[in-house]
Amino acid sequence: MPETSDRKDDHIRIIEEEDVETSGAGFADVDLVHEALPELHRDEIDTTTTLFGHELAVPIVIESMTGGHPNTTKINRALAEAAQETNVAMGVGSQRAGLELDDEELLESYTVVREVAPDACLYGNVGAAQLLEYDLEAVETAVEMIDADAMAIHLNFLQEAVQPEGDVDARGCLAEIERVAEGLSVPVVVKETGNGISRETASRLADVGVDAIDVAGQGGTTWSGIESHRAAAVGADRQEAIGNLFRAWGVPTAISTLEAASVHDQVVASGGVRSGLDVAKAIALGARAGGLAKPFLGPAGRGTDAVVDLIEQLSLELRTAMFVTGSATLSELRSTEYVVLGRTKEYLEQRR
Amino acid sequence: MPETSDRKDDHIRIIEEEDVETSGAGFADVDLVHEALPELHRDEIDTTTTLFGHELAVPIVIESMTGGHPNTTKINRALAEAAQETNVAMGVGSQRAGLELDDEELLESYTVVREVAPDACLYGNVGAAQLLEYDLEAVETAVEMIDADAMAIHLNFLQEAVQPEGDVDARGCLAEIERVAEGLSVPVVVKETGNGISRETASRLADVGVDAIDVAGQGGTTWSGIESHRAAAVGADRQEAIGNLFRAWGVPTAISTLEAASVHDQVVASGGVRSGLDVAKAIALGARAGGLAKPFLGPAGRGTDAVVDLIEQLSLELRTAMFVTGSATLSELRSTEYVVLGRTKEYLEQRR
Amino acid sequence: MPETSDRKDDHIRIIEEEDVETSGAGFADVDLVHEALPELHRDEIDTTTTLFGHELAVPIVIESMTGGHPNTTKINRALAEAAQETNVAMGVGSQRAGLELDDEELLESYTVVREVAPDACLYGNVGAAQLLEYDLEAVETAVEMIDADAMAIHLNFLQEAVQPEGDVDARGCLAEIERVAEGLSVPVVVKETGNGISRETASRLADVGVDAIDVAGQGGTTWSGIESHRAAAVGADRQEAIGNLFRAWGVPTAISTLEAASVHDQVVASGGVRSGLDVAKAIALGARAGGLAKPFLGPAGRGTDAVVDLIEQLSLELRTAMFVTGSATLSELRSTEYVVLGRTKEYLEQRR
Amino acid sequence: MPETSDRKDDHIRIIEEEDVETSGAGFADVDLVHEALPELHRDEIDTTTTLFGHELAVPIVIESMTGGHPNTTKINRALAEAAQETNVAMGVGSQRAGLELDDEELLESYTVVREVAPDACLYGNVGAAQLLEYDLEAVETAVEMIDADAMAIHLNFLQEAVQPEGDVDARGCLAEIERVAEGLSVPVVVKETGNGISRETASRLADVGVDAIDVAGQGGTTWSGIESHRAAAVGADRQEAIGNLFRAWGVPTAISTLEAASVHDQVVASGGVRSGLDVAKAIALGARAGGLAKPFLGPAGRGTDAVVDLIEQLSLELRTAMFVTGSATLSELRSTEYVVLGRTKEYLEQRR
Ligand SMILES: Cc1cc2nc3c(=O)[nH]c(=O)nc-3n(C[C@H](O)[C@H](O)[C@H](O)COP(=O)(O)O)c2cc1C
Ligand SMILES: Cc1cc2nc3c(=O)[nH]c(=O)nc-3n(C[C@H](O)[C@H](O)[C@H](O)COP(=O)(O)O)c2cc1C
Ligand SMILES: Cc1cc2nc3c(=O)[nH]c(=O)nc-3n(C[C@H](O)[C@H](O)[C@H](O)COP(=O)(O)O)c2cc1C
Ligand SMILES: Cc1cc2nc3c(=O)[nH]c(=O)nc-3n(C[C@H](O)[C@H](O)[C@H](O)COP(=O)(O)O)c2cc1C
Repeated sequence: MPETSDRKDDHIRIIEEEDVETSGAGFADVDLVHEALPELHRDEIDTTTTLFGHELAVPIVIESMTGGHPNTTKINRALAEAAQETNVAMGVGSQRAGLELDDEELLESYTVVREVAPDACLYGNVGAAQLLEYDLEAVETAVEMIDADAMAIHLNFLQEAVQPEGDVDARGCLAEIERVAEGLSVPVVVKETGNGISRETASRLADVGVDAIDVAGQGGTTWSGIESHRAAAVGADRQEAIGNLFRAWGVPTAISTLEAASVHDQVVASGGVRSGLDVAKAIALGARAGGLAKPFLGPAGRGTDAVVDLIEQLSLELRTAMFVTGSATLSELRSTEYVVLGRTKEYLEQRR
Repeated sequence: MPETSDRKDDHIRIIEEEDVETSGAGFADVDLVHEALPELHRDEIDTTTTLFGHELAVPIVIESMTGGHPNTTKINRALAEAAQETNVAMGVGSQRAGLELDDEELLESYTVVREVAPDACLYGNVGAAQLLEYDLEAVETAVEMIDADAMAIHLNFLQEAVQPEGDVDARGCLAEIERVAEGLSVPVVVKETGNGISRETASRLADVGVDAIDVAGQGGTTWSGIESHRAAAVGADRQEAIGNLFRAWGVPTAISTLEAASVHDQVVASGGVRSGLDVAKAIALGARAGGLAKPFLGPAGRGTDAVVDLIEQLSLELRTAMFVTGSATLSELRSTEYVVLGRTKEYLEQRR
Repeated sequence: MPETSDRKDDHIRIIEEEDVETSGAGFADVDLVHEALPELHRDEIDTTTTLFGHELAVPIVIESMTGGHPNTTKINRALAEAAQETNVAMGVGSQRAGLELDDEELLESYTVVREVAPDACLYGNVGAAQLLEYDLEAVETAVEMIDADAMAIHLNFLQEAVQPEGDVDARGCLAEIERVAEGLSVPVVVKETGNGISRETASRLADVGVDAIDVAGQGGTTWSGIESHRAAAVGADRQEAIGNLFRAWGVPTAISTLEAASVHDQVVASGGVRSGLDVAKAIALGARAGGLAKPFLGPAGRGTDAVVDLIEQLSLELRTAMFVTGSATLSELRSTEYVVLGRTKEYLEQRR
Repeated sequence: MPETSDRKDDHIRIIEEEDVETSGAGFADVDLVHEALPELHRDEIDTTTTLFGHELAVPIVIESMTGGHPNTTKINRALAEAAQETNVAMGVGSQRAGLELDDEELLESYTVVREVAPDACLYGNVGAAQLLEYDLEAVETAVEMIDADAMAIHLNFLQEAVQPEGDVDARGCLAEIERVAEGLSVPVVVKETGNGISRETASRLADVGVDAIDVAGQGGTTWSGIESHRAAAVGADRQEAIGNLFRAWGVPTAISTLEAASVHDQVVASGGVRSGLDVAKAIALGARAGGLAKPFLGPAGRGTDAVVDLIEQLSLELRTAMFVTGSATLSELRSTEYVVLGRTKEYLEQRR
């Protein structure tokens, strides 16, 4: 198996076996104010939203995770079938392997998603650093690969910096993102991968015409942590230590959501989102939808029904939160009363 | 036994056997300022208050708990005898079973309270959602059932949302409450059941003419927790998880007391009130009286004397707090100096 | 042995054997700012202060503790000999037994202090509530008993309220204190016994001419805790529970010191003072001296040398703190830079 | 072996064997804001800085530690060889033994550093208190001993105060520092040794012409703690207790860095700096470089390579932090966005 593809396999094994989740996303510091008298029927609450021009039944995103190794086809099939069934959005993992390697079996790990989910909102994934190598056409190829509704460009420079073999040249990325945002046939979402996006960065991205931002903040899956494990396995002590040192680096998800939403209209909150209540809090903070990666990995291994079940669970949790805040729609939820406490409050106060 | 009645039995068993109390009511964050030189005789302090037009010896309320199952007659008798003896207020549990089922033995579980407590301040209990089914006459029947001094209308939509069989239609409740508040022969108190009432909701209730508010805030008995246990018992995983997720949902009692008291004159603080010192703090925050449910359950099972003993204990604790804050009356206690610390302080600051 | 006298014995046994110290005096929240370049010779720092018109070598007070039982003569002798040797101030415990019982052996437990400490600053002790029974002459008798330099009047109404046999009539005390403050031949210090004195109370005391205030705030020995143990021993459940409930009641010592010092010039900080560093912090907060009770009890049992040793230790600790804050005198220490953090900061902010 | 020399040996043994590190430097309360899109090549980031007129490859200082005992030659050789190899700054420990004792072997423990590090930025070390005994010529002798690029004058009065044999005369030190700062042939840095330097002190030092300040704040190696252990070993109970009491005394490093940097241009942050990320935070707070002592002790014992390895590790950690904050140079890092939380935030707010 080629390197890019094997690495993916490595990552998934570590995520399943090791403790590579951090805390501190900040949702525990956010309290939605209870509405004792909601004047709604819970089952008539409207949870639909529009993301990348697609109407979702619930504001839930299955975050970019996998593809690029034959082993991952099963995972992506389950996720996509569930996305189709429940009408939520889903991203595939980095399409680099799909673009660079010429292997039908491997390619299927991506293409499967559109096969089984003809109507779902699906989006592709490329790394910002790779844009330096790809022309617009290559990105369009990635779009076509899954007939994508949008394309995610991920920022993961901390992860690269922790990898012994990492690509640590981040120059010119913004210009490349601008080029793609201008020229691509579908909307572009720029996403982090666990360290969040500050207001300043979100603002620069808005300025170059990016259509949406997925914060992927600090508080969930930690790629520094994952790479630290990988480094340990090959005896790369220096990287192991750095991975640990930066294990919880980044803008906490709750903060990042608020900051990005202050400059951008279409924000996905992700990174440590672990329940429909977290999704509700994220929306109250200004997000359009909440995204989860790691929590879907286990269910995806068990099959489509398990994924559907998780989505329905999250959906009912969100609906319940909307019910007891008296929010008939997501836009009402967005303006519901909340308080921010503890460390998150302190952080916010200093970022104003 | 019919469903409504059996459910009550279930609830009481779970409350007695499982851990279904939360923390965070906020009283631990409230510090009354000591008065080293009180210039009072402790035993001449006046603890009387007027609630629902009835003068109580101490501002203590035995919160709405039970009735509706023959097993509960014993509990209600003990509580009511104690209320009569000590002159505190007492509520019965939801009278739904009493109104809907035609069963003498069952009915006695309610009527016993007035039989043994001819002079006490007793109040009835119906759910806000049931008002949609009842006309005013039905509510009057509930009043007559116990010759009630007031009628409590409870709001428990989170609990309903957690129950597999729950009634999650909250539409039109405010109008129904208004109708009852206007037409009923006795004062109406609207109460939550463990998730608190925000200033906004209290304000809407005040506007429709409700006579009193019982906050039943977050920090004591958790109905989400209770329903989670019930769901677990019947294998309803989804509800079990939601019950857990919303276990500590709601406006903390101390906050809710302050907020409700800012728009309403007659507020009962309940939800995690666990001592006469908590009652004192609640009154300093603006409450008319403090209410306790769970702490009375054990004593009620042991008999009237145990209940009287608890009331006397609470009463002496309150009196002691009044003594060392130099408060000769409850209205002096209401204006005693206090500080609010920690999370409660942060919460408050953001709700101003 | 008469009741008053035996009770004293009881108390001392409990204080020695049980955990009747609380935390939360607030000194841990106070940080004195380091002076790296003090420009002083540590051993030439001037730690003298004037208390009750008497110049002390160090601003340390052995707080009122005992007397009234023949067993306590040994303790008071050791304390007084040490006070004489080191020139610190010392109070005797309540002189009630000495005033009310006619027993030479018992009386000696008080008179011993002046015998062995002809030059020390010694002060007497009566309860505020007893002033209602005593005329000025009786208080003068207490002064003469030990040829006192000052007379402490203690406020301990919470303790009384916890005792089954407690005297809970606090009416008229302020007027009695005024009468004594006006008429007595020596200065009068009003002291609490572990629950602190608020700014409001300190202000009322200043207004009636009291010469000094000893805050005895929350955070050290807890009399509610002690009485709770005594109540438990005689099966007085109600008092046992109340003692526990009010175990940590009161104005924390650091706060009380600041508040009292804002309205009074001569303030002793006590209650949880446990080192010379705490004394230094107390003085930075505005105190004239720091007082300790419980820490002296063990050494007093071992003899004069152990008490002297503790005073010298405290004194060197204070001197070290003065050295590293660059304070050549106590008045410089009083204006040294400090910060107040945590709960103490929050408390203060709300009392401004 | 003479006393001064043996004491050094003692210290090092205790630092290696006992727990003499405190927490609370404050770096954990400082969060640098992530830059998801740094637009830099990590390996082209410029980490050079100028310290004492010398350009360093990375802003890392091996803090003053040792010399003065033949045993320490090996340590100093390893540190200096590494400083030469990596081009960081290095200080020697107090040169008192070198100045006062006439012993070739002992002297070599200092002179070795320049022998093996002809090009490195090396600085000498004398105590402020010793300046009272030395004339300028003696300090020049210390400079010449290692052909120093700068001379550190250390302030360690708390340590002296804890030592039974300590020199606690701090009078006249500022004037002596001024004399040396004016007359010496090389720049003068004034440093603490673990208790920090406040803004007020930094300001006085700036006024007398000191060229740099090394804060050596609270949060790392504690000399009070070390002396407490030494005191315990000789049964000096009083000093043992005082050492413990003042174990965590001082201005926390993060605070001290901010305060010193507000009045001085050339500030080294030290005391509990434990990673390149801490160095990055220190620079964001205004430092010119970060210094570490204790972390170098173990590697120095293992040899030059181990020291080089640690410097490279720190350097890569710093570089990574610069990369993910988008800082191409240290001056950009100095103006990167950060937040200050928790106790450190509270401390700061009160020092404004
Ligand atoms: C197994 C796994 C694989 C991932 N692969 C990618 C990827 O290929 N591209 C990408 O942009 N993000 C990837 N991520 C990051 C997620 O899309 C997401 O931003 C982040 O993990 C969300 O946090 P959570 O896992 O805490 O929910 C991956 C995450 C996981 C858990
Ligand atoms: C056993 C039990 C039964 C209850 N039943 C009712 C009820 O029927 N109607 C109602 O309005 N509240 C009911 N409650 C809620 C209480 O009236 C009250 O609002 C809340 O529990 C107060 O909190 P505490 O238990 O922490 O003191 C019940 C509570 C308990 C513990
Ligand atoms: C053993 C003991 C006996 C005491 N007896 C008296 C007393 O008779 N009169 C009085 O005013 N305070 C008395 N106190 C209270 C102290 O004077 C003092 O205010 C308080 O305890 C100081 O706190 P500390 O013990 O935490 O240092 C006593 C305290 C102790 C520990
Ligand atoms: C083993 C050791 C010896 C030290 N000796 C000296 C010294 O001789 N002169 C001095 O100015 N500081 C001395 N220091 C203090 C350091 O230079 C420095 O200010 C402080 O320890 C930095 O903190 P850290 O150890 O937490 O990194 C010494 C520190 C250590 C750990």
